Amino acid sequence: MSEILVVGSIAYDTITTPTGKADHALGGSANYFSLSASLYSRVRVVGVIGDDYAPSDLAKLENRDICTKGLQKVPGSTFHWEGKYEKDMNEAITLDTQLNVFENFNPELPEEYKDSKYVFLANIDPELQHRVLDQVQSPKLVGVDTMNFWIDSKIDDLKSLLKRVDVLLINEGEVRALANTWNTVAAIKELTNWGPRAVVMKRGEYGFMMYSEGQYFILPAYPVENVIDPTGAGDTFAGGFFGYLSKLNSDWKLEDVKQACIHGCLMASFTVQDFSVNALEKVDWPQVEKRQALYHKVIAHRD
Amino acid sequence: MSEILVVGSIAYDTITTPTGKADHALGGSANYFSLSASLYSRVRVVGVIGDDYAPSDLAKLENRDICTKGLQKVPGSTFHWEGKYEKDMNEAITLDTQLNVFENFNPELPEEYKDSKYVFLANIDPELQHRVLDQVQSPKLVGVDTMNFWIDSKIDDLKSLLKRVDVLLINEGEVRALANTWNTVAAIKELTNWGPRAVVMKRGEYGFMMYSEGQYFILPAYPVENVIDPTGAGDTFAGGFFGYLSKLNSDWKLEDVKQACIHGCLMASFTVQDFSVNALEKVDWPQVEKRQALYHKVIAHRD
Repeated sequence: MSEILVVGSIAYDTITTPTGKADHALGGSANYFSLSASLYSRVRVVGVIGDDYAPSDLAKLENRDICTKGLQKVPGSTFHWEGKYEKDMNEAITLDTQLNVFENFNPELPEEYKDSKYVFLANIDPELQHRVLDQVQSPKLVGVDTMNFWIDSKIDDLKSLLKRVDVLLINEGEVRALANTWNTVAAIKELTNWGPRAVVMKRGEYGFMMYSEGQYFILPAYPVENVIDPTGAGDTFAGGFFGYLSKLNSDWKLEDVKQACIHGCLMASFTVQDFSVNALEKVDWPQVEKRQALYHKVIAHRD
Repeated sequence: MSEILVVGSIAYDTITTPTGKADHALGGSANYFSLSASLYSRVRVVGVIGDDYAPSDLAKLENRDICTKGLQKVPGSTFHWEGKYEKDMNEAITLDTQLNVFENFNPELPEEYKDSKYVFLANIDPELQHRVLDQVQSPKLVGVDTMNFWIDSKIDDLKSLLKRVDVLLINEGEVRALANTWNTVAAIKELTNWGPRAVVMKRGEYGFMMYSEGQYFILPAYPVENVIDPTGAGDTFAGGFFGYLSKLNSDWKLEDVKQACIHGCLMASFTVQDFSVNALEKVDWPQVEKRQALYHKVIAHRD
């Protein structure tokens, strides 16, 4: 087991889905990632919160033995995102974004975080992602997420970042935008030429497609009959992915990375079953193992 | 090996995709299905063609030992569909539909077709699908496809039809329309209560999801780097599915039906690599076996 460092957003989200609404509920990539990864390893989280941040929300991480020393508390409000999902649960429509304290976020790692071996750079400005990597001494595995906004506005920073990371974990729209082609099969193959050893494309309810070392690895999502809110599923996936690998703490092996994708899927399948981190924070290891067994049944086939 | 009966459309399609255009190219569900299934078993095809139908297009089926005695040739033009795909290759936009001779199609089975054990009712008016079933003596496995037009206009005929069939093979949009819910996981489970022993949902580039006997079976599509035209992929899938099962010619076993879904995927992956039936008509059995081995590598994982 080796500790995982995550840098990302901490947010309050207001979300409407066909099944209901959550108002100012806990969100942000760093929260989803941490809670997911904490089932496997110890997590260190770096982010920024406002003076409105509830101690009970901090406790949600601390109850999972997640180190929150890297959370900067500054005057002002916590980042707030408002979005809705209409029929298509695969695509969020942004209604409002208030960056608040996130606007001037400059990630500074506490001294004791700098020896982190597993590093996940959730979706923030690629310049800041570079700055985080500059502070880590000798990471063993670095993963990165991004979004279309940075692909459009900071492509050079992003491209130089991709030369420093092992795994790119992004969704289908981001794959298409980055590789500038509609065919995601061709695109993720192309993106491995840009630096990362593996590209993991998250496909929402359809699962994932990975390309690494000349091979595709593709599997579906766990079938969830009661999807309530897909927000955070991608970051939860990344948490399961990093959690699995950091728990192993062994050298890169493609078979392990494949298994990490499956754990990403499993963890994400819990998150979508409720609003905010409500389902995720209740999951325990026996539930993960039970779902893993069910998942293997769903994809089991003769050769 | 047992013979397969298919009833469906025979068409000339004019199709534009981001990669090019095909003008009045051979299409129609019965053609895609037959060519696909003919790699496994003998196929008997029922449909209607106009007096413009090219003998060379008839020869495409006959070269594969497909019996075309059930094709009615009547005065007038063959059914013509014009459509385009924009960036999203998963969804066709219809530009023009000329039913022509298809408008008054009344499927009549030649006497020697009536003992067919495997029957696929491709997407036509559910009243006509009923009429076909009435003519078959004792089918072993009946499958049916439909479309939103019939779901909206002839739901009662469709519902009574579903009580007479073993397998419903439809796409995601049709699943949602039929079950009247957005969550396809819940929807295909619900649809098995309407009659069919198995519901197979085709998900285009994402593969398929099946529900049968209280179990989900889900796998991705074979990753195609050069998708040219997805038209006919669903009917090609059905051809591989029925082809596999009719070649086995054994009693219903869920494990066989799962394997049939994989063969559906494999066959569909050829169709999308060129316009019309161009790629499909060139496929031979060694190519299917080669792709099957590659597909198993793509989905292979530790337990």
